Amino acid sequence: MAETATRTGGDDKRPRPSQERRKEIFEAAARIFAEKGYAATSIQDVADAVGILKGSLYYYIDSKEDLLFGVIQQAHEGGLANLEQLDKIEGDALVKLRYAIEAHLLSNIKNIVKIGVFFQDFRSLSGERHDYIVKERDLYDQRLRELIREGQEQGVITRDIDPKIASLGILGMLNWVYQWYTPEGPATPEELASTFADLILGGLAVDEGRPAKRRDIGKLPEGVPLPARQDPV
Amino acid sequence: MAETATRTGGDDKRPRPSQERRKEIFEAAARIFAEKGYAATSIQDVADAVGILKGSLYYYIDSKEDLLFGVIQQAHEGGLANLEQLDKIEGDALVKLRYAIEAHLLSNIKNIVKIGVFFQDFRSLSGERHDYIVKERDLYDQRLRELIREGQEQGVITRDIDPKIASLGILGMLNWVYQWYTPEGPATPEELASTFADLILGGLAVDEGRPAKRRDIGKLPEGVPLPARQDPV
Repeated sequence: MAETATRTGGDDKRPRPSQERRKEIFEAAARIFAEKGYAATSIQDVADAVGILKGSLYYYIDSKEDLLFGVIQQAHEGGLANLEQLDKIEGDALVKLRYAIEAHLLSNIKNIVKIGVFFQDFRSLSGERHDYIVKERDLYDQRLRELIREGQEQGVITRDIDPKIASLGILGMLNWVYQWYTPEGPATPEELASTFADLILGGLAVDEGRPAKRRDIGKLPEGVPLPARQDPV
Repeated sequence: MAETATRTGGDDKRPRPSQERRKEIFEAAARIFAEKGYAATSIQDVADAVGILKGSLYYYIDSKEDLLFGVIQQAHEGGLANLEQLDKIEGDALVKLRYAIEAHLLSNIKNIVKIGVFFQDFRSLSGERHDYIVKERDLYDQRLRELIREGQEQGVITRDIDPKIASLGILGMLNWVYQWYTPEGPATPEELASTFADLILGGLAVDEGRPAKRRDIGKLPEGVPLPARQDPV
């Protein structure tokens, strides 16, 4: 009784923000940002989706950007947990790389709506928050790059692939899922994770039985025209 | 003199739409959509960027969506030209796949602003236009998948990778460039194209010297925890 009275009290009795309600608000914001885009979403849209008054939302956040930042941080948390786990794994760089690839893909699918908002809208964050997210994102890329270099030093990863370019390619493969993944698709998240790891590790692993350089696999005949370079628009 | 008079004529003398001005308008629209997002862009923004009156824009288009559709079509044209070229190449599936990968990456970089608008905003197209673009996009994915299957039948591509999952991974690697590419980066578009092809073809090519299945490369130790599945938000 006493609690109910507090929660429905007048102007001078603000309801205590509840963790569950907070979670509900950020999940709703993620869904609406993903659907309409951040710019086209209003605080009112989020309040309507949760079924509370707009004014009540301000117990939880100060601005629409707080919603975006919260969603993006939550999208990022899974990735950070994976990086911590990575350091505990015993094995050479190929083993660690398989873990990094599979775990990142599984985390992305688990948080797919928030990951979509991350990549579609993180540029809308301002100042320090923008820089913080970019820095966190780059940590991930750097760790992948380091792993590939470690593998080259250990002699288990081919030296004829540039670690920096490879890591950007791998992240593209793993992050792109938000553009096409649906739970109704023909493959489970675990199958996708293993297959992407197979493909990447097959491409990177040193391979004594293959005499040619990777550049010679599927070498193009002389004179095949590739799209010419040009100043981007 | 006569021409100038026509072009600056009154209400009853509409200037003839020029191809150059048309191009300028779509390039400006692409830049502004990429920067602000489609939803937050107004026709006025585009008119201001080109330095013409909003009313004059309507000689070229009927709606803001016409601008988006035009930009996305232009982004797509490079890809379609590559598919045509692909059919003319002599060689096995690995050769064709190398071409498909390098050409797609080079086209994406050449049209990087429009490619960004494509992936950020094609969901804003309505009805038939949306369906048309999705169908065109899927053609590309299907062709890649076919190539991988052809290579498996020819015995040059490993059978232990699913062509559908591989093609989605490859497209992710190639399309993701719009998130990170800058002309100031350390690698040229051609280096990026070759390295991505090396990595993918190294992962797919049959390899008699490697006894293990790809799944056994970097096999995880027992008990390593991967992120558990969970309903997406």
